[in-house]
Amino acid sequence: MAGKLSPLAPKSFPALPALAGVTIATAEAGIRYKGRTDVLLMLFAPGTSVAGVFTRSRCPSAPVDWCRAVLPAGKARALVVNSGNANAFTGKKGRAATKLTAELAAKAIGCAENEIFLASTGVIGEPLDAEKFRGVLDRLAKGTTGNAWEKAARAIMTTDTFPKGASAHLDLDGTQISISGIAKGAGMIAPDMATMLSFLATDAPVSPPVLQSLLSEAVQTTFNCVTVDGDTSTSDTLLAFATGAAGGKEISDPKDPRAYALGAAFKQVLGDLAQQVARDGEGATKFITVDVEGAESDESARRIALSIANSPLVKTAIAGEDANWGRVVMAVGKAGEPADRDKLSIHFGGIRVAADGERDPTYDEAKTSAYMKSQDIGVRVEIGLGSGKARVWTCDLTSDYISINADYRS
Amino acid sequence: MAGKLSPLAPKSFPALPALAGVTIATAEAGIRYKGRTDVLLMLFAPGTSVAGVFTRSRCPSAPVDWCRAVLPAGKARALVVNSGNANAFTGKKGRAATKLTAELAAKAIGCAENEIFLASTGVIGEPLDAEKFRGVLDRLAKGTTGNAWEKAARAIMTTDTFPKGASAHLDLDGTQISISGIAKGAGMIAPDMATMLSFLATDAPVSPPVLQSLLSEAVQTTFNCVTVDGDTSTSDTLLAFATGAAGGKEISDPKDPRAYALGAAFKQVLGDLAQQVARDGEGATKFITVDVEGAESDESARRIALSIANSPLVKTAIAGEDANWGRVVMAVGKAGEPADRDKLSIHFGGIRVAADGERDPTYDEAKTSAYMKSQDIGVRVEIGLGSGKARVWTCDLTSDYISINADYRS
Repeated sequence: MAGKLSPLAPKSFPALPALAGVTIATAEAGIRYKGRTDVLLMLFAPGTSVAGVFTRSRCPSAPVDWCRAVLPAGKARALVVNSGNANAFTGKKGRAATKLTAELAAKAIGCAENEIFLASTGVIGEPLDAEKFRGVLDRLAKGTTGNAWEKAARAIMTTDTFPKGASAHLDLDGTQISISGIAKGAGMIAPDMATMLSFLATDAPVSPPVLQSLLSEAVQTTFNCVTVDGDTSTSDTLLAFATGAAGGKEISDPKDPRAYALGAAFKQVLGDLAQQVARDGEGATKFITVDVEGAESDESARRIALSIANSPLVKTAIAGEDANWGRVVMAVGKAGEPADRDKLSIHFGGIRVAADGERDPTYDEAKTSAYMKSQDIGVRVEIGLGSGKARVWTCDLTSDYISINADYRS
Repeated sequence: MAGKLSPLAPKSFPALPALAGVTIATAEAGIRYKGRTDVLLMLFAPGTSVAGVFTRSRCPSAPVDWCRAVLPAGKARALVVNSGNANAFTGKKGRAATKLTAELAAKAIGCAENEIFLASTGVIGEPLDAEKFRGVLDRLAKGTTGNAWEKAARAIMTTDTFPKGASAHLDLDGTQISISGIAKGAGMIAPDMATMLSFLATDAPVSPPVLQSLLSEAVQTTFNCVTVDGDTSTSDTLLAFATGAAGGKEISDPKDPRAYALGAAFKQVLGDLAQQVARDGEGATKFITVDVEGAESDESARRIALSIANSPLVKTAIAGEDANWGRVVMAVGKAGEPADRDKLSIHFGGIRVAADGERDPTYDEAKTSAYMKSQDIGVRVEIGLGSGKARVWTCDLTSDYISINADYRS
């Protein structure tokens, strides 16, 4: 399914060490692809807390419905993910498939069905044959290991050209804590949520409500600030699992100083994964960071930044290495947020190209054009009205995006 | 500037007869292009009423500011349009350029400056040298003729591959009335307003307030229902001129039955022009009509229809002749409007591909794939919640869109 490796891919998958209380296995279940892994089973130690953030689509997939239904209990023993079929818009058959998958997994592991979390990614509208998991889950449950994060990241890929992982380590009052996360997503990527699937695990001891609040906050400035094409998936799922296996007293008060430290580390890992998603944007040749400052509020800044990052004309101009700041003005204008044309300043990288509503008097086309040849492009807009700011990541729009998506299903 | 002719272009420019009270001339002023006309002067008989609808961009062009400032007087003697430079985000220089253009035109014609209407289209952010109009407008004013609608439509083109015109004729209580309109637009096309530039003229006798209300209403179901790339221009301008030269009593009451008849004709002409804009969408190979029915309200239906029409994934699938209705579900879901996945039905042309939240049991891939090879594609979604409906026009998204826009400026 995957095309040629994104030129923006990291050199290698990061070293994600085994995490206490988490084991992993993957398999080929023949869901859609031949000759590649397409099922991931992640097992968690008894007592593991879970939190989740899901797509805001009004037409969510069956696994999203399943996760929402079982999340309130706050405990997880396993995660089952398949690629190749999203089990979305599959009606009653889709609900039956999630139920059967959870049953099979719960039986294989020996836990309650509501401790099983599910995610599916791939084509929409095709019934998912969950019978294919019957033997597979039993085998997987017997063969999980700790050091399989890269395998896990690979098993959940669809049009991704590289597996995405990130980790952080911190000291929480003398307890060494690790956080590891994986993500998949390359198209149909827009905030609420930005990625299709991402899973985070930590050995920190955290209660489900605190874990949920840390996750919900961290997503705002990470996955909710990345966009590839403005299209929101039916399947977007971010789950965080906290095994507590590192020991220490459970963090059950959101005001616990350890919660702040853990939340900061979550942001680091999710921010890294979100940027990797943009770097693997379908057809991407440039990684783009859009900074908006001086807006009336942070939320206003975010909307303006997303308007710029989602504009096909801005994205194609950057693909063409064209410092077309006029299109940035257009995108600011169409955002519908407070803006005063005659107070706008626009920078590409460190170069101010426009100020006070017109081209910068010192504008140097050659210098700016040279900068536009960079692989990482920064666009910074000063609105000049307030102190609201936001940062959004995206990629350029190339004809490879078209060719990848014009024949994805068939 | 224009590339190869859109495969969706009409066979020829329609016959737009001379319209009493309107004369036209075009010229090469060397604004940006070489060897093609880039200035349009349209003259109107004394007493001509004018109405306008403009971009909702917060960063409008200088000519948009000019038109908004002079519109309240409600009278027009001339329209000056240039292509090649949008005079947008040009600061004080931009304001000075509009002022000078209006001065030159008013002097050439012998009228007040606030009877001159201006529009510019082309690159954003480059200062427009209005001195280039100095001799040109004098010459143009002396050489206008009635039968030059096609020339007018050509002079305002940028990346358009064909000139766009439409007309209607009606009998208003025994008076024969004509309406002729032209438009330009091929990219940076999204509602509020959809087209970059469109000008409508009629010989009907209409007061400025009635003309404004007819125009504002007609735009809702025409130009505000067409999208190419979801990008809203800084320069979108729709102006309507009513010369009254056909004779008859002025329509000054919006409840006058003649106003309804005229409004219906406006919708016909503007709808025709709006569809031509979508047919000339940059890189378009398919013309797409999106119908949404059964939404909670017409406005909700319009938002869902636009979410479908603006989705890069839907548009690339149609470019690839792929009946990927899963992406239509995605676009319905991301619209944020009331929708119930399990009540949705989706049709491509006359073929129901999905119903009650899953693939139609009688779905026939071969039959559907054959339909997707059509040049005109209909996508119809029944939401199943109410009686709101909307129709939106767009085109597919191809790699030609990318190549056209990756090197437009440079």
